[in-house]
Amino acid sequence: MSLHLQRDLDQLKKELLQLGTMVEASFTNAMLVLHERRIDVVEKVFEDEKLIDEREVWIEESCLKILALHQPVAVDLRFIVVALKVNNDLERMGDLAVNIVKRATTLAELAPLSTPQDFIGRMPEIISDMINGSLDALVKLDVDLARTIIEMDDAVDDINRKMYETLRAQMENDSQTVERAIEFLSTSRYMERIADLATNIAEDVIFLVDGEVVRHQVI
Amino acid sequence: MSLHLQRDLDQLKKELLQLGTMVEASFTNAMLVLHERRIDVVEKVFEDEKLIDEREVWIEESCLKILALHQPVAVDLRFIVVALKVNNDLERMGDLAVNIVKRATTLAELAPLSTPQDFIGRMPEIISDMINGSLDALVKLDVDLARTIIEMDDAVDDINRKMYETLRAQMENDSQTVERAIEFLSTSRYMERIADLATNIAEDVIFLVDGEVVRHQVI
Repeated sequence: MSLHLQRDLDQLKKELLQLGTMVEASFTNAMLVLHERRIDVVEKVFEDEKLIDEREVWIEESCLKILALHQPVAVDLRFIVVALKVNNDLERMGDLAVNIVKRATTLAELAPLSTPQDFIGRMPEIISDMINGSLDALVKLDVDLARTIIEMDDAVDDINRKMYETLRAQMENDSQTVERAIEFLSTSRYMERIADLATNIAEDVIFLVDGEVVRHQVI
Repeated sequence: MSLHLQRDLDQLKKELLQLGTMVEASFTNAMLVLHERRIDVVEKVFEDEKLIDEREVWIEESCLKILALHQPVAVDLRFIVVALKVNNDLERMGDLAVNIVKRATTLAELAPLSTPQDFIGRMPEIISDMINGSLDALVKLDVDLARTIIEMDDAVDDINRKMYETLRAQMENDSQTVERAIEFLSTSRYMERIADLATNIAEDVIFLVDGEVVRHQVI
């Protein structure tokens, strides 16, 4: 591989890591709005989404330039294709953080509703770790870490399911809770989708290193 | 452009169209399960998802081969990058059709619940048209058609919003409807996401032809 290609690939990895950091920060801010009613942070999440979108377009252009300039083959070519997908997944996570904030803004105007403790504490923590960890696995091509990320997704699914059961029971017992419960249910699903996208990234890392298509397997 | 590259790009377009046809058929089958309780079609949707997944992996490999073999530049290179994204979007639509079928299977075991007429008739029709139309726009590089597809998404969003209001009112008036209403609400959201993915494809077509980044604009 030429030194120039190596340098451009290193730069691309750096850009993806930066985008990941932005997305994780947006998600953390969305959690502040949701769980602490920090309405002062709402605008920040909207502004950051624009920056995330711009960065996504920029990274896609970087990938195109590397392809056109260096015409990489084999593993380098595959890395660029994975980078394009990861870029896309990160941008979608940013969109989902915005969706959470929209729901959280509605919820902040309504009376509080009790939700499972894991939804407030563990779920956001696991998802932040999944966002950071999946990108770490990509940059280091660390298959073991990628597999750990994929396993973490089960915990998120469990908490999401528990949320569904709790909220459904609340709605059935007290019709006054319906509006709030639906909004909370949506935020939980958006969170679960962010975890799914981090899982996608981890699956792509395994594919990149081992050539094994994990993404359509039942694990 | 070499004749070989032209031939491979034509083949790639054909493969994407075929995948689109498979996805649209799966969506139509999912609607049969949802609206006509056609439980006999459930297995077919699950089986077709596996074929869709296999086809997605296959098309990604085709793109990699074209990149490695022909090292295309300019508009041809950009087309391959868009093809990779479209491929991904189509596979996600297939997943969403399966999600709809899972919810519809639960609903088929429960008492019926009345839903807005547009949810049963117009919404599936528009979404099928959006899936087919977005791929048609891609293959013909038809920007006008792409813009039409993007506009159609508003109608889907409207029907989804109407569904939310109807179901919320039902849940508030009769706690017996909560379980069914939540399931229906999910199916409506999955449908809305399929329409969003078709919109993504249409936006990519505009980007490909005009170089205009529509995907992060408010239209």
